[in-house]
Parts: sequence; C-alpha cells; structure tokens
Amino acid sequence: MGKGGMSHGGGEEEEEENKAAWLLGVKSLKIQPYNLPPIGPHDVKVRMKAVGICGSDVHHFKHMRCGNFIVKKPMVIGHECAGIIEEVGNEVKSLQAGDRVALEPGISCRQCQFCKGGRYNLCRQMKFFGSPPTNGALANLVVHPANLCFKLPDNVSLEEGAMCEPLSVGVHACHRAQVGPQTKILIMGAGPIGLVTMLAARAFGAPKIVIVDIDDQRLSFAKHVGADEVIQVSTNIQDVGEEVVKIQNAMGANVDVSFDCVGFSKTMSVALNATRAGGKVCLVGMGQSEMTLPLTPTAGREIDVIGIFRYRNTWPLCMEFLRSGKIDVKPLVTHRFEFIQEQVEEAFETSARGGNAIKVMFNL
Amino acid sequence: MGKGGMSHGGGEEEEEENKAAWLLGVKSLKIQPYNLPPIGPHDVKVRMKAVGICGSDVHHFKHMRCGNFIVKKPMVIGHECAGIIEEVGNEVKSLQAGDRVALEPGISCRQCQFCKGGRYNLCRQMKFFGSPPTNGALANLVVHPANLCFKLPDNVSLEEGAMCEPLSVGVHACHRAQVGPQTKILIMGAGPIGLVTMLAARAFGAPKIVIVDIDDQRLSFAKHVGADEVIQVSTNIQDVGEEVVKIQNAMGANVDVSFDCVGFSKTMSVALNATRAGGKVCLVGMGQSEMTLPLTPTAGREIDVIGIFRYRNTWPLCMEFLRSGKIDVKPLVTHRFEFIQEQVEEAFETSARGGNAIKVMFNL
Amino acid sequence: MGKGGMSHGGGEEEEEENKAAWLLGVKSLKIQPYNLPPIGPHDVKVRMKAVGICGSDVHHFKHMRCGNFIVKKPMVIGHECAGIIEEVGNEVKSLQAGDRVALEPGISCRQCQFCKGGRYNLCRQMKFFGSPPTNGALANLVVHPANLCFKLPDNVSLEEGAMCEPLSVGVHACHRAQVGPQTKILIMGAGPIGLVTMLAARAFGAPKIVIVDIDDQRLSFAKHVGADEVIQVSTNIQDVGEEVVKIQNAMGANVDVSFDCVGFSKTMSVALNATRAGGKVCLVGMGQSEMTLPLTPTAGREIDVIGIFRYRNTWPLCMEFLRSGKIDVKPLVTHRFEFIQEQVEEAFETSARGGNAIKVMFNL
Amino acid sequence: MGKGGMSHGGGEEEEEENKAAWLLGVKSLKIQPYNLPPIGPHDVKVRMKAVGICGSDVHHFKHMRCGNFIVKKPMVIGHECAGIIEEVGNEVKSLQAGDRVALEPGISCRQCQFCKGGRYNLCRQMKFFGSPPTNGALANLVVHPANLCFKLPDNVSLEEGAMCEPLSVGVHACHRAQVGPQTKILIMGAGPIGLVTMLAARAFGAPKIVIVDIDDQRLSFAKHVGADEVIQVSTNIQDVGEEVVKIQNAMGANVDVSFDCVGFSKTMSVALNATRAGGKVCLVGMGQSEMTLPLTPTAGREIDVIGIFRYRNTWPLCMEFLRSGKIDVKPLVTHRFEFIQEQVEEAFETSARGGNAIKVMFNL
Repeated sequence: MGKGGMSHGGGEEEEEENKAAWLLGVKSLKIQPYNLPPIGPHDVKVRMKAVGICGSDVHHFKHMRCGNFIVKKPMVIGHECAGIIEEVGNEVKSLQAGDRVALEPGISCRQCQFCKGGRYNLCRQMKFFGSPPTNGALANLVVHPANLCFKLPDNVSLEEGAMCEPLSVGVHACHRAQVGPQTKILIMGAGPIGLVTMLAARAFGAPKIVIVDIDDQRLSFAKHVGADEVIQVSTNIQDVGEEVVKIQNAMGANVDVSFDCVGFSKTMSVALNATRAGGKVCLVGMGQSEMTLPLTPTAGREIDVIGIFRYRNTWPLCMEFLRSGKIDVKPLVTHRFEFIQEQVEEAFETSARGGNAIKVMFNL
Repeated sequence: MGKGGMSHGGGEEEEEENKAAWLLGVKSLKIQPYNLPPIGPHDVKVRMKAVGICGSDVHHFKHMRCGNFIVKKPMVIGHECAGIIEEVGNEVKSLQAGDRVALEPGISCRQCQFCKGGRYNLCRQMKFFGSPPTNGALANLVVHPANLCFKLPDNVSLEEGAMCEPLSVGVHACHRAQVGPQTKILIMGAGPIGLVTMLAARAFGAPKIVIVDIDDQRLSFAKHVGADEVIQVSTNIQDVGEEVVKIQNAMGANVDVSFDCVGFSKTMSVALNATRAGGKVCLVGMGQSEMTLPLTPTAGREIDVIGIFRYRNTWPLCMEFLRSGKIDVKPLVTHRFEFIQEQVEEAFETSARGGNAIKVMFNL
Repeated sequence: MGKGGMSHGGGEEEEEENKAAWLLGVKSLKIQPYNLPPIGPHDVKVRMKAVGICGSDVHHFKHMRCGNFIVKKPMVIGHECAGIIEEVGNEVKSLQAGDRVALEPGISCRQCQFCKGGRYNLCRQMKFFGSPPTNGALANLVVHPANLCFKLPDNVSLEEGAMCEPLSVGVHACHRAQVGPQTKILIMGAGPIGLVTMLAARAFGAPKIVIVDIDDQRLSFAKHVGADEVIQVSTNIQDVGEEVVKIQNAMGANVDVSFDCVGFSKTMSVALNATRAGGKVCLVGMGQSEMTLPLTPTAGREIDVIGIFRYRNTWPLCMEFLRSGKIDVKPLVTHRFEFIQEQVEEAFETSARGGNAIKVMFNL
Repeated sequence: MGKGGMSHGGGEEEEEENKAAWLLGVKSLKIQPYNLPPIGPHDVKVRMKAVGICGSDVHHFKHMRCGNFIVKKPMVIGHECAGIIEEVGNEVKSLQAGDRVALEPGISCRQCQFCKGGRYNLCRQMKFFGSPPTNGALANLVVHPANLCFKLPDNVSLEEGAMCEPLSVGVHACHRAQVGPQTKILIMGAGPIGLVTMLAARAFGAPKIVIVDIDDQRLSFAKHVGADEVIQVSTNIQDVGEEVVKIQNAMGANVDVSFDCVGFSKTMSVALNATRAGGKVCLVGMGQSEMTLPLTPTAGREIDVIGIFRYRNTWPLCMEFLRSGKIDVKPLVTHRFEFIQEQVEEAFETSARGGNAIKVMFNL
C-alpha cells in the first residue's frame, strides 16, 4: 500500500505485479513489469479497464517519435483510458475505491502563467501519459492525481470513459471556435478526429455539418453517425475552387466555422476558401508541418485561424454529453483487443492500417 | 445648392466647377471636372482640405487594380481625407457648415447581416472612396453621409484628420488582437502601416514594442516615433530561427502579439515562430497572396492568426488619441503637394518610391 | 400602388381600405381605417396573418403607458407578427410578393454608435411597432423595411412566425448570458417570457433547467414543454435561503446562469443567492422598478447581473430553431381570436387575465 | 534551516525568534513569537520589509470579523506585503535568497474547477494571509509558495511592492470591466480603493475619469494624483438625478464604465443612472450588504453589473505599471510605523480614523 494511501481491498494486493506495455523500439511493444511511483496524498491508484489507441500512439509505435517528442528510452504507451479506483491518497475526498473513472492524461505544473490563467494545456512542464519521457496508461495499474480522474455516470461504460480523451479534442476545438446553435460547420477529414469533432459540434448545437473526405467508406460512416452531408473528393485535387463550390452547394448557406482535421495545404486551402467572411478556420489535424496557403485574401475577409493543442477542462462536459445521450461514441469503437503480449502489437498495427478501424480499444 | 441642403456660403457657390483627380490609365491622373451626386437628407457636402496617398492608391495608379478590384473606367482616386463642411442635408443635426471633419471613406449597406451585427467593414455592398467602381476623395468637393464625418477637436489639424484613415488600420488591428497594457508587441515592417500600428499599440498601452525591417532609415524613424527596440534584418534571411532569437533577446520577454505589416512568407514565419504559446499573430500587410508557413506547429501552440480588413468604428478613438496627444501622427507626413495638374502625378510617384516618404499629403 | 413599389396582385388592390386596431384610451380598442405610409425603395408591404398579444401590449391597453412610454394619441397596437408579402419596394431583391415572413418590429436609425456597433436594440431613435408614438402591426397591411422581414421555412406556420418575437427575447437573453451545453439554468417565473427563455436555453444546449413559479398550473405546463424540474413557491416567502436550498437540491449541481423572468426583489434575491460563484443572473422580467437586493455578497462571488432589452439579430436563429424542430412554440398559443371589433378587446382581456392563457393570437 | 531549503546567510539564523503581530481580541494586537511552518520544496521564506494596512485588516482589528470571516482564535494580521527572500525550497528555480519580492497573499487549491479554469480567486479552499483562520504577513518572516512571490524591478521599492496588493484590486476591476483607451470612467469614492482603481483605469488608457466623494480633502488628493474632474456631494443626497447631471456635465460625454468603490444604495444608484446604455457598473466597495436599486430600468438599458472579488494574475502587470512609471503609488503611502509593540495598535487606529491617512505602512 502506497505511503499515505488507503487500500480498499485485502492484504494480498501488494503482491500483485503491475505490468505495462513498454515501447522498446520501432514497432516493438512488450508487456513487462512496471513499478509505480508512490501514491501521494492527492493521488489515486487506478486499475485500467479500457485503453484506446490514438494516432499519436501509432506514431510513437512506428517512428519512436511524434513531432518534437522523441522516445529515447523504454516508455509505457497509451493515454486514452478509464478504469476503477483501487486506492486513494489520504487527502482525497472526492473519490473512493471502486469508483469508475475516466482519466485526463496530462499533469500540468499548476504554478506557471498558463496554469494560473486557465490555459494549462499550454504548460511547458506538462507530464502527459505516453508522451516521452512520461510513462503512459496501457498498464494494469497507474497512479494519477485525483483531480484528473472523473467519475463516470452509471449509464456510461468504461470504454466510453476512455473515449472522453479523443472526444475532448473535438470539444476543445468547438469551445475555441465558439460553436453554437447558429454555427454552420465544415469538417475536412472523416477520420477519428474529424468524427469526434463532428459529434462535439452537433452537441454544441451546430444546425448543419458537411464533412469531406477521400474515402467513401469513412464518409458512409460519418453519415451514419450524424453528418448532414458528405462530399467525396479526389486526392489529386486540381481545382480548390471546384471543391469549394461543391461544399457551398451542399451547405446551402455560408460556412461559419471550418475544422481542418487533416492538416494539409490542400485541405486547409479548401477550408479557408469555403468559409464566410468573419468566420473561423480551426486547424486540428497535423498532416503537414509547413503549408502553402492563400492566407492574405482570407485574412482580408477577417477569417481567423484558430490553433488547437489537446484540450483543457473538457471532461465534465464530455461526461454530460455521454450521460444525456447527446453524444454516442460507442459506434466509434470498431476493434477490441486483450491486454496480452499476443495482441498488443497487432492492435497497434490494426490502428495504423486505418481503413474501417476507427477506434481500437484494449479491454483490460 | 443640392436639393434638401443648406448653403453656408454666398450665392456664387453653384457656379464653381468641382474638380477631381481622375485615374485614366496606368500612371495617368488628370484633374478634371467632377459632377457630384445630389446631397441627400442625411448627407453633407465637404470641401476637401487634406488628402493623403495610401499604398492601395499607388497600386491603382501603377496597375489599374488592387487585389480583385480593377479600375475599368475613369475613377476619382483617394480616400484618406479631411475637409470642411460646406453644406448639410436637411435631416442632418450633428454637423453644420464650417465644421472641420475627418471622413471615414466606406459606405456600407446597413441592411445586411454584417452591418446589423456591427462588422460593417465586411459588408459586400460597401462603396469605398477610390476603390473601383466608387469615386474617391481627391477632389475639391465630395458628398458623403454625415454619420461618416467626424468633427475634429480644435487642436487637431485637417492633415491629422486625414491621417485618421491609416491610423484606423492600426487601431482596428489592436482592437482585433486585444492589445492592452500587458501586451508585448512585435511588428514586422516599419512602413506607414507598421508605424501607425506601432503608434496605435502604444496608445492601447503596449509596454514594449520591437519593430523589424530591412531598411535602417525606416528603423531610425520608427525609433524616433516611439519603438522601444528596432532590429534590422537582411532580405535574404536563411535562418528564420536566428531572427527569432534576435527578436526575443530584444524583447527580453515573450511576444504576446505580432503584427505582420509586410505580408510575406518570411515575415509571417518569423512572426509565428517568435510569438509565445497562446499568443496572436495579426496579418495586416498584403505582400504575397499565397504564403508558405509553419502553421501546424504554431497552431499546436494555440497561436491564433487574426485577419484584418480595413476597420470599423475607429474614428472616435482616433480623434481622442490625437486630441489627447497620446498619438502624434504629424511626423509621419513627410511630403506635401498641391492639388494641381503639375503635381498630382509627381505626388503619387513620390509615394511609390517609398524611401524617406512615409506619408505624402495633398493640401487643397 | 405605393410609389416605387410593384404590385403582385390585380388592379383592384388599391381600393381596399386598410384597417387597424387603434388604442384610443384605457381598455378602448377600435378597428378603424389606417392609411399606410408610402412604400420606400427598400420597404415591403405585408398582409398581416398572425399577431400575438404581449405583456407590454396589455400594459398599453390597460394603462395607456408602459414604463416611460406613454400613449398620447391614438396608436395602432401590436408587434408580434407575421404575414404575407403583398408588394415590394423597387430596390428589394431578397423578397417577393407571396413570401411568408416574420417581422422584426423595431426600426433603428442605423447611423448612431449603437447601430454601427451592432447593438442596435439600444438605438435611441428606434421606431418600434406599437410602442408610442409608433403605430403597430395589428392591421390588415403594414409597410416595413425588407431587411426586417424574414422568410419563413416551408414547415413553419405564420403563427409560429409571429412567435419569433417573444422567442427572440429568450434567444437574446441566452446569447447575452452565453448559455451553452455546459450551462445549468434556473428560471424564475413560468409565464410566457419564462417559457420562451426555457425553450431557448434548451435549444442552446442547456443540460438542466429548473423553473420556479407560484402557480402550479403554469409549472405543469412548463414541465410539459420541457423543464427538467419545477418548484412551486409561496408568494409570501419568508426565507429566501429555504427556497435556494430547494432549487439547489432540484438542480443536483450548481446553477451557472439564472434568468429572473419576473423581476421582483424576492425573485431576484433568490436568483442571486442560488447562482454559483462566477455565474450570471440575467434580469428579463420587469415586475418592480426598484429592488432591494443582497448585491454586495453576490458581487463578492463575482456573479454578474446582465441586463436585457428586447433583442438584436435573433430572427435567423429563431427560424432555424423552428425549422429544425429544436423549439416547438405551437403549444404556447393557447387562445385565438379573429380580427373583428367584437373580439379585439376580449382578446386583450383574455391575455390580461393570464391564468391558462399563455399566448393569445389574432388570426387575420 | 527549513527542511529542503538552502540558507543564504550564516549559521546564526536559526536562533532568531520569528515574531508576528497577533490579533488577540477587539483592538488588541500583540507582537509575539510565531513558529513558521516548514518550508516546502516549492516554497520560499521571506523576510518582511513592508506591510500595509487594508480596510479589511481594520475591520478584523475592530470587530474580530469581516463579512462572514470570523476571528475565532489568535491570528497573525496583515496581507499587503513585500520583503526579501531569505531561503528557497529545493525545487525553486525562479527565485534566490536576496531577491526583493512582492507577495500575492492567497494560496488557492489549484485542483478545483475555478483554479483549473483560471478564476482561482473564487477557489473555496483559498488560504489568504490574515483572513481567518489563516495567519497573515505582519511578521519578521513568512513562508509562502514561490509562484506567488514576484521579483521587484530595481527601480521599484519594497513599499511599492506591498502596494501591489491594493493596486491589484483596481487592476482586476479594470480587467473585468474591460477598460481601454475608449472607456470614460466614473468612480464613486475617493478612498484608497477608489484611488487605486483610478490609477489602474488611467494605466489601462481611460481618457477621462471623474471621481465623486463627500470629502473635499480626499477629492483634492484624487485630483492631485490624476483625476480629471472631481465632484463633491453631500451625504444626504435627496436627488440622485441632480448628482447624475453634475457627473454627466463634468464628463462632457457618456460614462462607459462606473466603479462604485463605496457600495451603498445611493452610490450604486448614482452609478447605475449615470452610466450609458450598454455600459458597465462594477461594484468594488462593500459598504452595505443589502441595497435598494433602480435595477430594472438600468437592466433595460443593458447595463451590466460586474462583481469583483480580490484579483487574479495581477502582480506581473502591477510590476510593469510601477516599473514604467505609468502608475505612481508612492503618494498614497501617507503614514509609516515601526514594527514594535508601541506602534502596532496606533498604526491600526490611524488607518481606522481615515481622514488624511490613505495608506498606513509598516517598515520592518
């Protein structure tokens, strides 16, 4: 039993060996012992029950890096997670052993200007599950601050709890873009992030959502889970203008806010051109680092380009959306794996292949 | 005397022939008769006394176009202007003959969604002095809505009144970027727009302003009129990162808001990289239509790119800045010309050459 | 046919005598001839089909005044209205004869600081249907600016069109209070304004709405049309604190935003005390001019008190809410009358009695 | 030497007995030993050099309570303070022994919704210097989190550092009311809080500030330190309207934002009536708990009432204002006392008497 903590179970607990999925090299994931840090007075120990695979996890798996974050030593992978409280630190009053919780994966310093100003997602000292060098959540047990563990309503499953993490990206994007019941929406990309953004935008009241992709299977899925209109485009777009006309016809109105959930010069150019004067384009996807864009004419129409990094303060709203049924994330979980060595790499390969795999989930 | 108007002068007035500077072709400006439209009940007739030359005027003069606006038939040029009320429409109560006024040059429809929502600068029906096909203000007399004519305080000259137009661009940019006493500022470009943006940012309380240009003469001038630090850069920047380091050293702190008053891939890339996480980059200059930018990493630091188009509701604040002395625009007027055929093209050539010519002004 | 207009009908039209309901004195309404002003180039002539009665209309009817607005000479009453375009001014392009439209009743000056800044509801020159000395809309025909007439979707009835006016009060209140999917709501008062505010808040995504009234019939109705919880209180509240506890228990969470749709010291005190730190209380009702309130302690919890006056730019969103079915106003129309002398005063008496009369509507 | 800390001085330090001013009963303050808590890894130990007396301190001194906060056991008083770092916790990197710092007095929980959302001043777990039951800062040494200690610029004195606390109230009020270079300001009350609000508003760019009080000596002082116009009123105001006319005449324009730094029905009624439609009234003073106000008509002009509680994230801006000379707080320190038993109660009595005592300061 951790120092300062209280066990909810019997005395045998300490003998269990905690194991985690360690990323050891390119495409090499091994389930090996993981010694947890001691549980602090404001922490909880959580038994993981559902851990999803995110595009950034796949990036780490395939390239041992994601953006500027490089995996330099073995690291536990995973950050979309939910589980059951096993033990609580001795100052924790909001939770108790047995509570089902979704975990917000990033621990910010809480002392810098960003943290004190409410934009803690920009904290430079952030320790984020499975973002090097911080160990992640694909493990039997993890220790985490209680204030980042959110109790699940009775009618929300642990898998749905794990889905709060990707959903939070969509919710934060909608917050930043101030989506409301008057906001007509264009979404570029029908992958997992495009889909959660669509679900979030709908829950924020967006009256019309048009979604664009190259893959008709993904578009069918998008339509199935709530898009008003879908538009299939070709990868070798010659004429951005033609695509913009299609979008505006499908919308039957102006586009107030666009979300580029792909992040290429082409998708962003389409988004900028399709959006009305005074509207917003929110860059969510990260396909290309450098983009070539018609920024001057669109700035001249006072279109603002909004940047997004993860999320902040989104879990309570995600819970409410899931509880009330305003958002149903269950159809997005298309593949499930066990937390055993035989399946762990296959699960990541499945996620990497994309196709009909939207969200790949471990059940622990 | 216009229908519904009241003359302030003697009976000879009607016989005066109004003349204006007509743009007839590339670099061809002729002072020729200009028949004014009738003065409506809410209009005033203004005798122009000071008209400045703007970069967009020079663009029209040299290319018969500016962006998508093409000069297809002879057009009176000019839009930075101030004058003296000659006559008022019979519903006008706020002004009387003899009042010295600065003119806001754009007449919006006042009926569309943008106008009713307070963003009238985005009105698609805008009729803007000297933007084809609308005739401009470089004339003896113009007719204009009274609500767009702002009375000058006693201690503000007509030339300063004409300077409210370029200054408004800076004021609007500061409004949009929410500049306040805590905002540390980077300005790319020490031309006329960079300078008015600097003056506006100072008046909004910006505690530190660093300005970057390639021209040391312009930088000296910028320093003279209020920049805290100036940085000279070379046109053939190889390393954006090096320039960013220089800027951050000069600032001695984070850049909260950057204004790119040049508008090239390089200047915008520097601005994006130099700005702190959560900050804003405001694109004011329009050097290049298409830009290649590191947008994904900067969006990932939640830097927002704010577009600017002209201004709205800025004249009262400009007046206050000039009245109180918080802003002194007088040093910016570096060259003066008379409104005679012999000088009109030379004035535009002077403005086009740039160099030590910041603002070229006609005195009528 | 009006100057500058185009008839859509036959040549007999001019001979029809337009009639309106004139308020001649306390409780004296007479249907008498009403000569319309000429139709201007941007105006339309509308044949009224549905006109609702508002609390302010009743106030005029009973007291010949409402607040500071005093009826000094005979005035056409009514301002909640919809009808069919009969004729359009010769500059009108957005509408044509035969179009079914809802009318926004206030014509602002479009030249003052408020109008140009997008807060035209605060314009001091506002001419508002049925607010003295401006004639209202309970007439066969009215002339109105085209930009204030909003085309009804096919699936929205003319009565629902007339309901856009009261609904706009709720929509504006929700806009001002920034209601969204995370906002838990308390509404004081289940009268017509409380109900439209509830419907609007729901459409803005409010996850939980508790409504308080003294009348159990009204509360049943509120529950029927969508309240999550209703609380009946007594008129002689001794203990505001007790009522606050009831509200917080019913909410099961903090109140983020309260709308006082009654406007008495007691209701406002309850709203202030029940709202969480950092929340908002929006004063919509106007029961008492002067109130005695615990303002210091609530200001010390940084609760902001938001004022509301009518609405601005709300019709398009109301249309969307009605079209999509997010809001159903039909149940609110509880009583209908014909536009004949025998019924006109009775209709106002019915509205004045309240009770089970939520919205009384004329069908013309 | 505290566990985990590093001494900057010699080995004799531990033998010094720390003393503090303990509030033992009504008007009973005794300088007695004060055992500090151990210094944590993120804490610093600060030798107090300047501690000011605030109205709330006086309230505690005279009544053993302030609002709902009751002094139930002996408590160290004082919270406006600056000093010199004596020792730093072993994780502290931003400060070192010898640094001169101003202290933000409130320690929030950093885990609740308010803290994570950036509104930490509303945290319910706040531990605030000298607010029962938390000990205050009128002591030789205190221990405090490093992130709440702000290094003083070289040209800012320790007394000015202590003045950051009251100044923060003004800065926070200006932030909340969105004061900028276009905001014309009315301030009710020329006491310490009225004066710091005036200084802050000026530094935020307010072009015109009118201040109202009953005391001509205070008004002279207000004029001396920067008010544009001062208006003396009588305590027995019969006619709020008359006072409003005086204010509007003095302003020569509309009042955009009013700060009531007194907090009585009369002052608040004047502020509400004097403010323009669409403006804001910020309640800062706390004279009366319950107020009788003309709230309905002012809400009907969409005047918002903004509540204020202390401040958040204001120290960096205060520092900048003091460093740059935009704000000069030195004239506000009118009386100085030593930290000895003979003077401590006299200092509080001096502050309590008011009159020409604006800010009473201890030099330790």
